[in-house]
Amino acid sequence: MNVQSQSKRIIIFDTTLRDGEQCPGATLDVDEKLTIARQLARLGVDVIEAGFAYASPGDFTAVQKIAQAVGTADGPVICSLARAIPNDIKAAAEALKPAAKGRIHTFISTSDIHLEYQLKKTRGEVLAIAEEMVAYAKSFVEDVEFSPMDAARSDPAYLYQVLERAIASGATTINIPDTVGYMTPSEFGDMIRGIKENVPNVDQAIISVHGHNDLGLAVACFLEAVKNGARQLECTINGIGERAGNASLEELVMALHVRRQYFNPFLGRPVASDAPLTQINTQEIYKTSRMVSTLTGMLVQPNKAIVGANAFAHESGIHQDGMLKNRQTYEIMDAQTIGLTQTLLVLGKHSGRNAFRTRLKELGYDLSEQDLNKAFVRFKELADKKKELSDRDLEAIVNDEVQHVPELFRLELVQVSCGNRSCPTATVSLTTPDGEELTDAATGTGPVDAVYKAINRVVNVPNQLIEYSVQSVTAGIDAIGEVTIRLKYGGSFGVVPANRIFSGHAANTDIIVASAQAYVNALNRLYASLQPVEPVATPVR
Amino acid sequence: MNVQSQSKRIIIFDTTLRDGEQCPGATLDVDEKLTIARQLARLGVDVIEAGFAYASPGDFTAVQKIAQAVGTADGPVICSLARAIPNDIKAAAEALKPAAKGRIHTFISTSDIHLEYQLKKTRGEVLAIAEEMVAYAKSFVEDVEFSPMDAARSDPAYLYQVLERAIASGATTINIPDTVGYMTPSEFGDMIRGIKENVPNVDQAIISVHGHNDLGLAVACFLEAVKNGARQLECTINGIGERAGNASLEELVMALHVRRQYFNPFLGRPVASDAPLTQINTQEIYKTSRMVSTLTGMLVQPNKAIVGANAFAHESGIHQDGMLKNRQTYEIMDAQTIGLTQTLLVLGKHSGRNAFRTRLKELGYDLSEQDLNKAFVRFKELADKKKELSDRDLEAIVNDEVQHVPELFRLELVQVSCGNRSCPTATVSLTTPDGEELTDAATGTGPVDAVYKAINRVVNVPNQLIEYSVQSVTAGIDAIGEVTIRLKYGGSFGVVPANRIFSGHAANTDIIVASAQAYVNALNRLYASLQPVEPVATPVR
Repeated sequence: MNVQSQSKRIIIFDTTLRDGEQCPGATLDVDEKLTIARQLARLGVDVIEAGFAYASPGDFTAVQKIAQAVGTADGPVICSLARAIPNDIKAAAEALKPAAKGRIHTFISTSDIHLEYQLKKTRGEVLAIAEEMVAYAKSFVEDVEFSPMDAARSDPAYLYQVLERAIASGATTINIPDTVGYMTPSEFGDMIRGIKENVPNVDQAIISVHGHNDLGLAVACFLEAVKNGARQLECTINGIGERAGNASLEELVMALHVRRQYFNPFLGRPVASDAPLTQINTQEIYKTSRMVSTLTGMLVQPNKAIVGANAFAHESGIHQDGMLKNRQTYEIMDAQTIGLTQTLLVLGKHSGRNAFRTRLKELGYDLSEQDLNKAFVRFKELADKKKELSDRDLEAIVNDEVQHVPELFRLELVQVSCGNRSCPTATVSLTTPDGEELTDAATGTGPVDAVYKAINRVVNVPNQLIEYSVQSVTAGIDAIGEVTIRLKYGGSFGVVPANRIFSGHAANTDIIVASAQAYVNALNRLYASLQPVEPVATPVR
Repeated sequence: MNVQSQSKRIIIFDTTLRDGEQCPGATLDVDEKLTIARQLARLGVDVIEAGFAYASPGDFTAVQKIAQAVGTADGPVICSLARAIPNDIKAAAEALKPAAKGRIHTFISTSDIHLEYQLKKTRGEVLAIAEEMVAYAKSFVEDVEFSPMDAARSDPAYLYQVLERAIASGATTINIPDTVGYMTPSEFGDMIRGIKENVPNVDQAIISVHGHNDLGLAVACFLEAVKNGARQLECTINGIGERAGNASLEELVMALHVRRQYFNPFLGRPVASDAPLTQINTQEIYKTSRMVSTLTGMLVQPNKAIVGANAFAHESGIHQDGMLKNRQTYEIMDAQTIGLTQTLLVLGKHSGRNAFRTRLKELGYDLSEQDLNKAFVRFKELADKKKELSDRDLEAIVNDEVQHVPELFRLELVQVSCGNRSCPTATVSLTTPDGEELTDAATGTGPVDAVYKAINRVVNVPNQLIEYSVQSVTAGIDAIGEVTIRLKYGGSFGVVPANRIFSGHAANTDIIVASAQAYVNALNRLYASLQPVEPVATPVR
């Protein structure tokens, strides 16, 4: 079967939930991952890399639940990462069982420096392992992806040999990573061309690419790879991931969309063809970006391409020389294409539960009855305070509700007084996991500091605040403020790894209340991780 | 003179203060521009585009003051933009007079679509204008840069002709812009090669490039241009600018630094040469990034390449498979290279004025006596509240003081009480421009809303809040919070252009106080712009 030459379309492989989640502080829980996976399916990605099943019980459960809920017959392929080790592959296969289309993505390093320092194995040994483990994965699923880790720095002749054997053993996708984000686009393109020309059975697999953005070149590298034969792109929403992140899904998709006539010939299509190069529903891009930003706490800068707040702010430059111009002269994309709409007044104080549910469905949010109830209560509270409620207000409420933080400590009361001539003072009441209500007060350098000190007096788990930020969701002085915080465990119980970061998020028109809630959410996550771990249903280790 | 082939070095042309400042809300006043220009000189940029002298009296003054203060004989070239119109060029020349090395950068569109819709001129007319205006600029300064606007969409044969004439008339730099951020790196490289091969006198000028990041490809386009003969890169700190911004200075410089052996041959150097490709002092990159982010209010996302908070957070991925590895295996840059240091405790409560001044000098801040006094008062206040003061705390204080907002209304008192079971209430007192102290109170949906409503009752200038954000500068719950807000004038006096955005910034351990101060700063800027404009010293229009 000649799969590679058949593919006149680019496969979008989203790894927001695996590589994206590896960035410090972006840790997502199972329910948040499920929410994002559902949105990725609506966005139309071909493959969702849902996690690394063997890495932890939480990862296993996440892959399994996503396979079950999102991996339907007409949904995306669900993928789990697995080292080229039998137990890893077995765990991946087990977690993927509920998916209609499951993929195991197994990897092993092929660069001499990694063989020597990390694997302590010879080239011959690694070749045999790759062959054997791909075949093992193939015994569970038809769809197997193989990655030679650190391919960019591997000896090309050896790399070709490993890839040939992996394909012969059943790999249907071979994925070429630039693990350290070091390559220039031409070098990346040359590497892909080399593989296409030198791996004899390469036509039996899809060539995929994976990279990091350390020098700001990931998207350009991938586009050059497409020109040289790559047909699958591994990317993340907002480009989140290790260090400077992965290639941005939205930049790749929109570059392929805007410049489709440039890319058509490389995919064997007529130049003038207007058929889309990916099956992404671009109108879902903006909403997906917002959701991932909110749930991971990874902010998007205003000058971020495609999804930044200024990305479509064309006006300022145009009227500088005060000319009347043909609009297309300066605009290569329309904000509508990515689903950026300006719906202002949608619901108000007198809107009922049904109107609320209907609008949320239109926005793509399908909440459980319980979540809908909670969100509706918040909506009513907010509608009492604000005159106009926009779609973005609704999104803030929903994103807040779908967080599913374990509610060990519950915030009952927060009360603050502060100012430039007074000492900031806070009072808080929390219900503890035992059901007791405890109240305490503290002063601080500011109102948030005072609130956090008072909460710490009640909760009493050593922690260190690393980051605190607030963004207003909507315009206007009565806007909802979204608070994101990250904190580090400060104790030495030995259960929680040092440096593990917990994030908390909350939205409210009162940023002090939102700050308090976000802190309690993060502390609840930290507190939960200090409890004994419940065993996973399937023994995977 | 064969300048092009002589240049074995890449010239860094920074346009943060011109194109960068064009992004919505990033408006900087003269003193802020001067502060950034001084830092750009320390960073070692070759050329500072200080503004567009003819655009407004404020721009004229900014170019003039930067020319005077930063444009010394051993400092950078100072440049002003000018349309290919005599009065524009005259204003630029006038503003640049104090500079030891001044450059006039004049431009005119060369694409047929711009000629037809914007200029309403023939190709022959534009050719004559370009020739004449470059010669006119040359009558003022030796160093003239010419840009054919929308070059990317111009007929190549015509473009070559215009460039040849511009060089013949005295242009020493020809700058090729991709005005709409549409090109792929290969296309950009091809365009530069075409110019190098088809413009007969191209060896008498430096080829420069300018681009926008709409598809996330600006940096890759520029690097491809370097490979094809470009020797000047027009870029901005943090990549700010119109829409998705310009090419990032830090990404370009670090890509050229990390991959210098790859780029050496394209510059006619020995492959193994370790000599730097730019004269940038990379250790100033991080500080410059922070300063520009603070003064413009344009946040940098954590996964931004080079300067994002996670860019050097290597650890998380490494210990995932729990291996001991050779550090260089995963690290292509060292955080020290960009000046990212972790100096923690530097000054405390008992530090004197001299220690404070000395440390600021070490950090690169050279304050006037008056600013130093104000900053020292803030330092002492802060030292009373916080136990440890880091370099970043000091930077926050200084960045706050160097804003130089016109102090028309002065915040005297702010006092707030709020909580989840009470109605947020604020009291503020402001001294008006007439010296009267007015006090008022208001309730709101949150404490910030209450404060802003109370301030609006006193100031009484119609305005609409567009954006509100808070970031903590340092770790720890007693961190300084930096508040940035943007607002729009809501009235119809006809003096202030509709949609003009004013920003305000303030830092304090109390985010309510910082919020109040940031709002008053923005309102003062708006209020100042409503006053009659004072005439510029030199009549430039």
